[in-house]
Amino acid sequence: MSAFSRLLPAWLTHYPREKLGADITAGLMVTILVIPQSLAYALLAGLPPQQGLYVSILPVIAYAWLGSSMVQAVGPVAVTAIMTYAVLSPIASPGSPEYIALAAALSLLSGAMLLACGVLRLGFLSQLLSRPVISGFISGSAVLIIISQLKYLLGVTPHGASSGEVMLDVLSKLPQSHLPTLAIGLTALLVLAVVRSTLAGWLVKAGLASQRAAFVVRVMPLVVVLVGTLAVIEFDLDRAHGVAVVGSVAAGLPAFNFFLPGFDATRSLIVPAFLMMLIGMVQSITMAQALAIKRRERIDANAELVGLGAANVVAAFSGGMPVGGGLSRSAINVAAGAQTPLASIVSALAMIGVLAGAASWFERLPLAVLSASIIMAATSMIDLQALRQAWSYDRADALALLCTAGGVLLFGLEAGIGMGIVLSMATLLFRVSSPHIAVVGRVPGTEHFRNVARYEVETLPGVLFVRIDERLFFGNLGAVEQRLNQELEGVADAHDLVLVMSGVNLLDTTAVEVFGEINQDLAERGIKLHLAEVKGPVQDRLMKSVLWNALTGEVFLSANAAYEKLAPPEVWCPDI
Amino acid sequence: MSAFSRLLPAWLTHYPREKLGADITAGLMVTILVIPQSLAYALLAGLPPQQGLYVSILPVIAYAWLGSSMVQAVGPVAVTAIMTYAVLSPIASPGSPEYIALAAALSLLSGAMLLACGVLRLGFLSQLLSRPVISGFISGSAVLIIISQLKYLLGVTPHGASSGEVMLDVLSKLPQSHLPTLAIGLTALLVLAVVRSTLAGWLVKAGLASQRAAFVVRVMPLVVVLVGTLAVIEFDLDRAHGVAVVGSVAAGLPAFNFFLPGFDATRSLIVPAFLMMLIGMVQSITMAQALAIKRRERIDANAELVGLGAANVVAAFSGGMPVGGGLSRSAINVAAGAQTPLASIVSALAMIGVLAGAASWFERLPLAVLSASIIMAATSMIDLQALRQAWSYDRADALALLCTAGGVLLFGLEAGIGMGIVLSMATLLFRVSSPHIAVVGRVPGTEHFRNVARYEVETLPGVLFVRIDERLFFGNLGAVEQRLNQELEGVADAHDLVLVMSGVNLLDTTAVEVFGEINQDLAERGIKLHLAEVKGPVQDRLMKSVLWNALTGEVFLSANAAYEKLAPPEVWCPDI
Repeated sequence: MSAFSRLLPAWLTHYPREKLGADITAGLMVTILVIPQSLAYALLAGLPPQQGLYVSILPVIAYAWLGSSMVQAVGPVAVTAIMTYAVLSPIASPGSPEYIALAAALSLLSGAMLLACGVLRLGFLSQLLSRPVISGFISGSAVLIIISQLKYLLGVTPHGASSGEVMLDVLSKLPQSHLPTLAIGLTALLVLAVVRSTLAGWLVKAGLASQRAAFVVRVMPLVVVLVGTLAVIEFDLDRAHGVAVVGSVAAGLPAFNFFLPGFDATRSLIVPAFLMMLIGMVQSITMAQALAIKRRERIDANAELVGLGAANVVAAFSGGMPVGGGLSRSAINVAAGAQTPLASIVSALAMIGVLAGAASWFERLPLAVLSASIIMAATSMIDLQALRQAWSYDRADALALLCTAGGVLLFGLEAGIGMGIVLSMATLLFRVSSPHIAVVGRVPGTEHFRNVARYEVETLPGVLFVRIDERLFFGNLGAVEQRLNQELEGVADAHDLVLVMSGVNLLDTTAVEVFGEINQDLAERGIKLHLAEVKGPVQDRLMKSVLWNALTGEVFLSANAAYEKLAPPEVWCPDI
Repeated sequence: MSAFSRLLPAWLTHYPREKLGADITAGLMVTILVIPQSLAYALLAGLPPQQGLYVSILPVIAYAWLGSSMVQAVGPVAVTAIMTYAVLSPIASPGSPEYIALAAALSLLSGAMLLACGVLRLGFLSQLLSRPVISGFISGSAVLIIISQLKYLLGVTPHGASSGEVMLDVLSKLPQSHLPTLAIGLTALLVLAVVRSTLAGWLVKAGLASQRAAFVVRVMPLVVVLVGTLAVIEFDLDRAHGVAVVGSVAAGLPAFNFFLPGFDATRSLIVPAFLMMLIGMVQSITMAQALAIKRRERIDANAELVGLGAANVVAAFSGGMPVGGGLSRSAINVAAGAQTPLASIVSALAMIGVLAGAASWFERLPLAVLSASIIMAATSMIDLQALRQAWSYDRADALALLCTAGGVLLFGLEAGIGMGIVLSMATLLFRVSSPHIAVVGRVPGTEHFRNVARYEVETLPGVLFVRIDERLFFGNLGAVEQRLNQELEGVADAHDLVLVMSGVNLLDTTAVEVFGEINQDLAERGIKLHLAEVKGPVQDRLMKSVLWNALTGEVFLSANAAYEKLAPPEVWCPDI
């Protein structure tokens, strides 16, 4: 393999020629089909519409090169778009040069973090979020997206600081709706809803293959957009009747704009970028995995992160808007028959053509129609089934889902996902915080120690032998301490406590500190703390800690050695 | 016991009369000694100085009534004060009526959360943070506090959006320092530093008992404050030479001001209040525990939370500033000889007297002296020893400490503690994310199954038996899936996978979903997924999940039943 071809992705160096036709056709179709959503998500993010098209070029190529999924398509997606808006709109005016620069910085930061996680193989961080929490977050975001779109559908200008206030203001302005706008929007919504719910069924009944029927359904939003635009042009709805349209879409290609974000921008964006990274990570890996399973392929989670990270870094410099692995984009890609990432590369190249020649065609696209398609997409993101399943399977998980969704709606996206992480972690902590601990005694006539609750064993008066069967770390020390005290209360005149550490592979720094306190506490109560059967590596570390020298008792090689040392002398001469 | 006395705390109903003298003396001394820090921390929080005195009355009584520590003293503390300032100063102008109302709301919210956690026995939530992360947070906050005080010490007015900028601006204004202010501040700082480092030693050498010497050291800051104030009065430093002083301290008692925070305030303060609750929880419980160990007493973590929560709720209505369990306050309390919470109640009552009569005495207290005492207190919060110990014991924990401290300094308190939580959790996840899994086979001639790596066992061609020894939840599924695929790769023409679930006590919602995907993935690869030895409660739940019906294989009562069913027919007649 030459040095050059080693830089190429595996799918390209072994590209099967027979797939070329399918990939080119799919790429071209994807380009056309994703134009409306690219414009829409850029507007949703508070950015000029053409930026949605810009980030459908180089970022798409970067992901095709470095990602591992064969058919996942990246680009502007709903969740990252609304997160961008939620994060940036309080600190800059949407659409302003400052806002645009911040959006690029946000993309760069989250991209750099994704890249770092991929390179450092930290994909396991995506496990910070449980599925119910993710589902609650996505559903809550979808409702926020729908609320954000109502103003376009009604043609009103609402005011309000929070999404709740905006919602109320929009509803109060219902009677002032701009009727032509409302008529167009509702028609588009109705058509899309009917298409979604019944068209595929009709077509299959009419004799179409189900895959082809699904593709027709995917094409319909574009048809609706075209009809809406033609209606505006035909009846001059924008100029004569005040229907809001996309407006000027800058033609031409995006500049490649290298920059480093300033300290202040980094400071205010670091937490949102982290949350965006986490959501992007989870969404992208989960979807790539689901797609790969259907196609009997495998993905590499860390390569996915590298691909998505590189796409976002490139997006920062060329287009300036965060991108993600898009559910509807990928579905369009698969439905159009894409076989390899070449389809994405074709679509990126075709997008250059669109931007060079045809961008102005979208200037009279009515916003109400775009909103209708965003609302339909958001509606499909609301996952009531996940709630129903979680509710019947595990109430705690269902509550986590509801709290996350409620948090997103009431307190915003950042607080919502923050609550979600905390809830996931609280569940995790709750589940790992009860380590297995047994009071043990010696099986008579042997050197073996067993659980006193299950075996006939001998014990020493005032001496408690406790075996800990789990690694000790900050998450379970509270339970360990409580249990030790509880067991000690059951021993009359306790004066020695022996911890049998055969099952302990690790004591973290917190554990060493807490055991230092337990040691001191026991000393005040006249009880010596001994350790037995400490594993080699654990002991090597412990010897460097302050606990080692402070220990009031001894360190025994075996529980039996401790037993013999601590047994009162009379036990040794029972025959006399 | 009468209905009334049941409302009284246990320490009061069984109050030993011989402790009364000690408690009253201690209470009176604490009142006087904590006045300077109460004023200082109110100023640090961006509030009028008298509020620090206000919250030293009713909140103190609430905690004495409901908490479980005998000697912990609550009141204004450094960390909550700087958190209050960090959270509120971006949304309101410090000292303004709006700011004051927000501070009260913050106190109410974090207090209500603490109360709820106490009542719901959620004290284990404090385990969200590992000790190194807490230590990093406290040290980082201490540096922030010191930076925030430099301007008072130098008598300059710095500008800047971040603490870094403020720091640089202060340093650039060093040549413009107000010399009388600087002279007073540096003198105070020097005296306090000498007192802290050497006075106790000298006094002990001079023949004083070490406990008495420690008390004298504790009194010294008050002496410095008094001398500073007298110097201002004597030489008219404030009016004639422009030395900044505390200024008007409103005399009279605080009003009891019942309110409920509005939706907008709740929305913007909910996350900071949560973080404040977490820090308050950890700090208060840890310190109460440390004090209790020294006094051979026990504390109840949940009662601590109830006490601290009630104190903050009361503080919201009467004084309007968040309170916490204070390290220096409690140390003063112990050094002054307090035996029970009665000392705190006495100090609260005495504070009423101070407010009614003597508040105006502190109006000409120079800010530079207060800053010097805050800087000394903050210096003692920087825990380099914790870093050194963590570094020698566990590098990962040391890095978590450094990252949290760095995060606090560079990105602010909220982001810093957020990073700390995430780091703690990442460590936790990393540690629990590798469950114990063994490939097993049948011990010949028995129905027992053992690890193939350790025993001579028989296996079936194309069939893999895997025993999972841990509960399955969102944190370890990635590792489980990876391991299963890895083991399957080692089996030629695999067609059946049997999961022996004898050690699995739980599958959470995420686990059910992931196993649904694994089931589907294996089906695509022509491998059936079977379960064996599923525990009763686990099975009861699983039967409600979609996985149960989608399972491609069977559910066997025992691994042996699966073995016999899946064995190829020729195994049954080896003799023919």
